[in-house]
Amino acid sequence: MAKEKGGGEDELIQSTFAPLASAFPGALGLKDDCAVLAPPPGQDLVLTTDAVAEGIHFFSDDVAADIGWKALAVNVSDLVAKGAQPLVYLLSLSFPEEPRRAWLDGFAQGLSAAQSAFGIVLAGGDTDRRPGLLSVTVTAIGSVASGRTVRRSTARAGDLLFLSGTLGDGALGLVLRGDPARRAAMGLDEGKAEALVARYLRPKPRVPLAPHLVSYASAAMDVSDGLIKDCGRLARASGLGASLDALRVPLSLPARTALARDFRLIETVLTGGDDYEVLTAVAPDRASDFRAAAAGSGVAVTEIGRLAEGSGVKVFGAGGQPLEIGRSGWDHFPD
Amino acid sequence: MAKEKGGGEDELIQSTFAPLASAFPGALGLKDDCAVLAPPPGQDLVLTTDAVAEGIHFFSDDVAADIGWKALAVNVSDLVAKGAQPLVYLLSLSFPEEPRRAWLDGFAQGLSAAQSAFGIVLAGGDTDRRPGLLSVTVTAIGSVASGRTVRRSTARAGDLLFLSGTLGDGALGLVLRGDPARRAAMGLDEGKAEALVARYLRPKPRVPLAPHLVSYASAAMDVSDGLIKDCGRLARASGLGASLDALRVPLSLPARTALARDFRLIETVLTGGDDYEVLTAVAPDRASDFRAAAAGSGVAVTEIGRLAEGSGVKVFGAGGQPLEIGRSGWDHFPD
Repeated sequence: MAKEKGGGEDELIQSTFAPLASAFPGALGLKDDCAVLAPPPGQDLVLTTDAVAEGIHFFSDDVAADIGWKALAVNVSDLVAKGAQPLVYLLSLSFPEEPRRAWLDGFAQGLSAAQSAFGIVLAGGDTDRRPGLLSVTVTAIGSVASGRTVRRSTARAGDLLFLSGTLGDGALGLVLRGDPARRAAMGLDEGKAEALVARYLRPKPRVPLAPHLVSYASAAMDVSDGLIKDCGRLARASGLGASLDALRVPLSLPARTALARDFRLIETVLTGGDDYEVLTAVAPDRASDFRAAAAGSGVAVTEIGRLAEGSGVKVFGAGGQPLEIGRSGWDHFPD
Repeated sequence: MAKEKGGGEDELIQSTFAPLASAFPGALGLKDDCAVLAPPPGQDLVLTTDAVAEGIHFFSDDVAADIGWKALAVNVSDLVAKGAQPLVYLLSLSFPEEPRRAWLDGFAQGLSAAQSAFGIVLAGGDTDRRPGLLSVTVTAIGSVASGRTVRRSTARAGDLLFLSGTLGDGALGLVLRGDPARRAAMGLDEGKAEALVARYLRPKPRVPLAPHLVSYASAAMDVSDGLIKDCGRLARASGLGASLDALRVPLSLPARTALARDFRLIETVLTGGDDYEVLTAVAPDRASDFRAAAAGSGVAVTEIGRLAEGSGVKVFGAGGQPLEIGRSGWDHFPD
C-alpha cells in the first residue's frame, strides 16, 4: 500500500488497514510495496479478482461494514467453489472523496468480520482518490491440493447437480432492499424480510464445503449471476446440457413464504443473483457420500437436476412439465 | 473473468483478453472463475496491486496501448524492486461506457507488448461498466527464492545507495506531455522531447536487475513517487537517514540538455515521479560486484548517496553544500 502520495494516505493505511494484516507476517505491516507469500507445499494457488462498485454491486447508502464484507465474500465464494481454502487477499480502493473516519472504521470492521468468518487475511493493497463512485477491488488467493482445483468444464454426462444452502434469498433481499414497501405484498413479517435483506447484504460463501468439492465434485461453480445462467455456463463449459427440477430447488422459510403468496417470484429465485451458493456436479455413485460429507461440515446440499448429452438448460416444474414463466421461457438460456 | 452479465462481456473477454492468457494453462482460457498457479518449488510469491485511472495516472487521450503498457509496468516495477521474477497478473477493468473495438485492440496490444517485455502473462480478471473514469487495476505476482525477498526496511548504516538507469525522464516527459509547447524553453529538439514523453508513457521496469538485487541488495524499492520521497521512505523504514549527491544522479542526454538550459528543473528531476527506476542499498564491500553484475545484465547502476544513523534525507550539490531549491528546501522530507 506504499505507493500513495502524501502522509494522509500512509496514515490511513496504517490506522485502518494494517490491523487487518497483522496476522500475516508476509504483509510486511503494509509498509512495503509488496507482500510475500510462502506457498503451502504440495498446493496449487487459486487466484481470483472481482470488483464491487457503488450503485452497481451495492447501494450508496449501504452500511460501510456490509460493503467491506461483500467485497471479500464475493471473491472468497469464487475460491471456495474451486475447492480452495482462502489464504490472503489484496485490496484496491478508489475513493471519490476523502473517506470519513467513521466510514473507514465501519468498512474495516466488516472486512475484519469477514476475514474471521472465511479464514482469510489482508496481505496488501492500494488506495487512491478519483472522481466517480466508490469501488473496492479484491484479489483473493486460496490453496488447493496440487492438481485438484475444481473446474467448471469437467462435468460428465449423467452427473447429478447439487446446490448448497438455499436459493433466491439474495435476489429477494435485493428486491426488499430496493423497495422495503414490498414486504407486505410478499407476505413477510419483519423478521423474514430482514433475513432476506441480510442474505443480500452479507453473502456467506460456503467455505466448509471446499474440501468436499475436491473429494467429490466433477465440476463446480458459485451461483452469483442466477442459477439458470450459471448452470448454463457450467453445462456449456463441459459440453453438456442440463435439466433442473424447479420443485427441488431448496428454499428458505422466508423465500417459501414469499412464493406461497406470489409464485411468480420463482422467476426471481431461479434467475436472480447474489446467492453465492455452490452448484456442484457429482457422479451418481458418489452422490450420497458427497451429501453426507457436506452435511457433516454443516452445509446442506440438495440434488436439483442432472447433466446429459446436449446443450442448454431445461427447467421442469410440477408433473415434470417444462416450466414456462417469463417472456423468453427457460428451455434454453443463451449466455 | 466469468462473473460478468451478458454475452457481450463474455465475448469481449474471449476476443480481447483470452489471447493474452494463452501461454498460461492455469488461466483456464479465462473461462472459469479463477486461475490456478502451481508455485515454483523453493520460491516465495511476491504480490502487489496498483490501479491506474484516467486523469490521475494517464491522460484521457493517451493511446490505449500506452495505458495497457503502463498499468502492467507500474506493477511489475514493484515486483522487480523486491527481487522477484514476474509470473502472472490479474486485470480488473472498469469502463465508464461500452469500449470501442479499436480501443480494446490497442489496449490488448499494449498489454501484449508489455507481457513480452517483462516476461509475465495474464491469468484472469474481471470487467465491469460503471459511471466515472476508466480505471485499470492490476494484481501482479512474481517469485523469488524462498526467504530472499528484498525489503525496504533492511538497509544498514553505511550502505551505499545506487540508482538504476537515469532519473527525471518520466517527470520531464510528463511536463512535455501536458504542455508540448515547453519543448523550446527546455532547449530540446523533437527527438529528445519524444524520448522523454515515451519514458513517461511507457516506463520500463528493470526486470534484469531482479536477481542481482537478491544477491547484493540489503534493501531496495522502486522510485515511483520521486527520488527524495521514496529515498526517505526507504531510510525511514530502515530507521536511518540518507544523504544524496545531486551531482551524481544519473541523467539521460535529453534530461541533461533540459537542465543545462534551466537548472531549476533539477527539482522536477529529484522530486518528480514516474521513473520506475530502482533505488538500492548495498553494503560498501559489495558495491563493485553489484555494479558489475547489474552492468552484465544491461542495467547501469550509479552510486548516488549513502545511508547513516539519523533520519531524513539530505541532498548535497556542488562543493558538498546542502542544496536549497524550492520553497521547503530538501534537507528533510517528511512523508
